[in-house]
Amino acid sequence: MQKQAEFPEAIKTKYPEQVVIAIARDRNGKANPITLGWTMIVSGKPPMMAIAVASTHYSIETIRHSKCFCLAFPSSDMADAALFFGSKSGRDIDKLAEFDCKTEPAKAIDSVLLTEAVANFECTLESETVAGDHIIFVGKVVCSHINTEPKKRLYTVGPGHKLGPVS
Amino acid sequence: MQKQAEFPEAIKTKYPEQVVIAIARDRNGKANPITLGWTMIVSGKPPMMAIAVASTHYSIETIRHSKCFCLAFPSSDMADAALFFGSKSGRDIDKLAEFDCKTEPAKAIDSVLLTEAVANFECTLESETVAGDHIIFVGKVVCSHINTEPKKRLYTVGPGHKLGPVS
Repeated sequence: MQKQAEFPEAIKTKYPEQVVIAIARDRNGKANPITLGWTMIVSGKPPMMAIAVASTHYSIETIRHSKCFCLAFPSSDMADAALFFGSKSGRDIDKLAEFDCKTEPAKAIDSVLLTEAVANFECTLESETVAGDHIIFVGKVVCSHINTEPKKRLYTVGPGHKLGPVS
Repeated sequence: MQKQAEFPEAIKTKYPEQVVIAIARDRNGKANPITLGWTMIVSGKPPMMAIAVASTHYSIETIRHSKCFCLAFPSSDMADAALFFGSKSGRDIDKLAEFDCKTEPAKAIDSVLLTEAVANFECTLESETVAGDHIIFVGKVVCSHINTEPKKRLYTVGPGHKLGPVS
């Protein structure tokens, strides 16, 4: 049976929610990762993926500047990196310099891959759309990579940035 | 370590992927549910949610016609309904007449809620954006509902529409 509820209460039923890390270079060439839960695939042919980024976040200008981003699926053992990248701002610090997280150059775009991730998707920016307090960026996947070892994805498993694997 | 892979192979790392059911009325008043995995929250204030629907699907015209849709989080015991709603077309049949799935009227929009779902979100259509072979619809949540009994969400847990709960 359904009962009416306020949105903040109702949306607590969303967990587990997948986690991704989007990485784009700023105008100084600094690769800036941001952790996001609001993401989806949006097209099969050609493959495209979308992310929603808060309008105030530094990542907005990095993605607009570089017109591309890498979308990494962090592995379940990357919770600390995901929390760090999701709680600090690239306006203040160089996240990839301050947190030890192995990267390698992307192949088709000017960004970096996360070496320990489950997978990485190199995306060229296709469109952006304002949606309330966020911007939806749609990227076309131009190159894909997977980890040579099987890894489990990272999820937010409950409120308060509780991260972990699911099974 | 990362190795380059084709997108269809790399995207197999996405599971588990959440499942939603979007319901919109067509021009004859028939409420038409479609099962979708490509969905995300896109705004906190105001609350907004997005879905990506294949351009050829009947749901495209139902959402455009009614300018609103209900987004239900099916519970883990609704796998059969989710498979049925995701594999049949509302062009051919009345899905809610042919599959026994309890509904109730929405409160703020002209659609229906799924009574046994984990939660239901009534959305007014805010925007649509073409993305490859899909259309992204953004809806503003104008009314939310949760199940009076705690239920687990339904996920696609592996390729081939393998549905179930996660923990």
